[in-house]
Amino acid sequence: MSKDFPFPETRVLAVAMGRYVGNTMAGFVMQSLGCEVAALNTVQFSNHLGYGQAKGTRATAKEITDLYEGLKESYLDDFDMILSGYLPGAASVEAVGSIARDLKYKHTMKPGSFFWVLDPVMGDNGKLYVAEDVPTAYKGVIKDADLILPNQFEAETLSGVKIVDMDTLKEAITKLHEEYRIPHILITSISLPSPGAEKSLSVIGSTMTSAATPRIFGVKIPAIDCFFSGTGDMFAALILVRLREAVFEIEGLSEIDAWRSEDDVAATDLPLARATEKVLASMHHVLTKTKEKRDEAMGKYHSRVKGRGEEDDEKKFHLVKSKAAEVALVRNLEALKNPDVKFRAENV
Amino acid sequence: MSKDFPFPETRVLAVAMGRYVGNTMAGFVMQSLGCEVAALNTVQFSNHLGYGQAKGTRATAKEITDLYEGLKESYLDDFDMILSGYLPGAASVEAVGSIARDLKYKHTMKPGSFFWVLDPVMGDNGKLYVAEDVPTAYKGVIKDADLILPNQFEAETLSGVKIVDMDTLKEAITKLHEEYRIPHILITSISLPSPGAEKSLSVIGSTMTSAATPRIFGVKIPAIDCFFSGTGDMFAALILVRLREAVFEIEGLSEIDAWRSEDDVAATDLPLARATEKVLASMHHVLTKTKEKRDEAMGKYHSRVKGRGEEDDEKKFHLVKSKAAEVALVRNLEALKNPDVKFRAENV
Repeated sequence: MSKDFPFPETRVLAVAMGRYVGNTMAGFVMQSLGCEVAALNTVQFSNHLGYGQAKGTRATAKEITDLYEGLKESYLDDFDMILSGYLPGAASVEAVGSIARDLKYKHTMKPGSFFWVLDPVMGDNGKLYVAEDVPTAYKGVIKDADLILPNQFEAETLSGVKIVDMDTLKEAITKLHEEYRIPHILITSISLPSPGAEKSLSVIGSTMTSAATPRIFGVKIPAIDCFFSGTGDMFAALILVRLREAVFEIEGLSEIDAWRSEDDVAATDLPLARATEKVLASMHHVLTKTKEKRDEAMGKYHSRVKGRGEEDDEKKFHLVKSKAAEVALVRNLEALKNPDVKFRAENV
Repeated sequence: MSKDFPFPETRVLAVAMGRYVGNTMAGFVMQSLGCEVAALNTVQFSNHLGYGQAKGTRATAKEITDLYEGLKESYLDDFDMILSGYLPGAASVEAVGSIARDLKYKHTMKPGSFFWVLDPVMGDNGKLYVAEDVPTAYKGVIKDADLILPNQFEAETLSGVKIVDMDTLKEAITKLHEEYRIPHILITSISLPSPGAEKSLSVIGSTMTSAATPRIFGVKIPAIDCFFSGTGDMFAALILVRLREAVFEIEGLSEIDAWRSEDDVAATDLPLARATEKVLASMHHVLTKTKEKRDEAMGKYHSRVKGRGEEDDEKKFHLVKSKAAEVALVRNLEALKNPDVKFRAENV
């Protein structure tokens, strides 16, 4: 370990979508922070689906399984972690579940030596954008995950609890800990009505105790008024690295099953809380820069259209806007590597 | 432009193999050095073919074309450069040729605004490892490339000249400039017999003059006695970035078609020579570190096998050796970013 890489060498299997959004994003973030990444792309599209149109192909569950078998046969399955993101259907969710279980089984004798970060990509703002059988498939595999990263809608879908206030939020988290025994939960965007207050987003996390009770903390960040694409994958990749780092800062914790902190550790002292703070610092910086770049690009677009006296083409406008909102990462790496923590975890 | 990124924002379309070798390598290198990369994977294998076995799928020429059409339809085809690497068959070579021509045509009115780096991956050490119709396909498309990166065998295959000494080397380069009008050529590994001398490798480059005559330079590097995988893709990605950087250091050159230097620029003063020096500095550092890591891993493997009193399993040995020789990149990024130039271009 060195100053630059405050955690041991780490091999990650990243199962997610191709192109910029998905593995290109997640893989790059993890590689930049020092992980060896084997990218298993579940989808190869020309662009992400936010554009409203795309060309490309989806990997079948059999292709996913075959690729993993190929890795195994060449002794390349010595992964320390797996990060799973967007999966195109229930069969692929099950295939990835089997891969993760297989890896987990291999590590049974060495607690803490394998960790699965699962982002149950299913939908947002009350709408499912995957096939209808995907939620059931996820409910079947999440009991093997070590950390899940649902957004509010996905947390509701998995727990069956509609989140409308702090009490229902706690209820949802408690259910996920108790029923599925998921050690770590991070709900990536909670926006509860708070009249009069400035618009903000909260990330809510919890690491369960030995009795499967929650330890809940929250980090509040100012909302940036813009839709960005790729943020979910960036978040997932960053949290994987920062959690590993935070765990290795605590003597012996990396040798405990699922890196679950002792029961006497308070919510705001959890490694998951430390990791979340760092991740949000990086995200906030990169997204602020992206917003500036986006506004500049859109300004140029508007004056170009105006200059030509053209009518605004709604479809083209949407496509140009989508491109302008792609996370501006490669030239803002410093903020990934050395986050300047501003938003702190608080008790909820 | 800033100290960290001494060239303007650059969007690259990278067409090559998936997983660590190929786009994961090339894409990561270019992203780390500040390029926006759209990765169009032509192959998704569990591992590269050096392992002697792999599972996965190849993209058809139609799938490659479709992905590009998808990018176009969403106004995502505003690439400044294209890097093409391993392509699985003649049809994909032709498909990529069409894509590059299409992009080139779009940029006709703005000389220097588009550049194609083509690595004609076909074989090595006298042996073809692609289908027999691939060389003919490459001969049909290289006239549109701005820089090609053949190894000795590939340069022989494309030029039809067997390289045995300095004269035949010059003949091969002259033929590629004259017959195909390829502005820049870099032969990535030349090993000519020189009795008594220490084992070394040379990289030989040339940028043609307005009369299509060669300007040849060479950079000699000490050979590292080990086969590494992924070096070709790493080299290609690095040269793309460093050539762009070297070109932007010279007033006005980036607005000249194919970035071809004035006729009075000497071979050793070419931007291609500057770029090659930087690339080889990075490569040498990373490969030296990889060799150390590899030797350590192989030492551990041998003592483990011995300790168990096992017979050496030849197949397993080959697989373990292949893995140990994967380029150790993610923890040696400093050498990519800030190469310490030791080997200088010389006249040939």
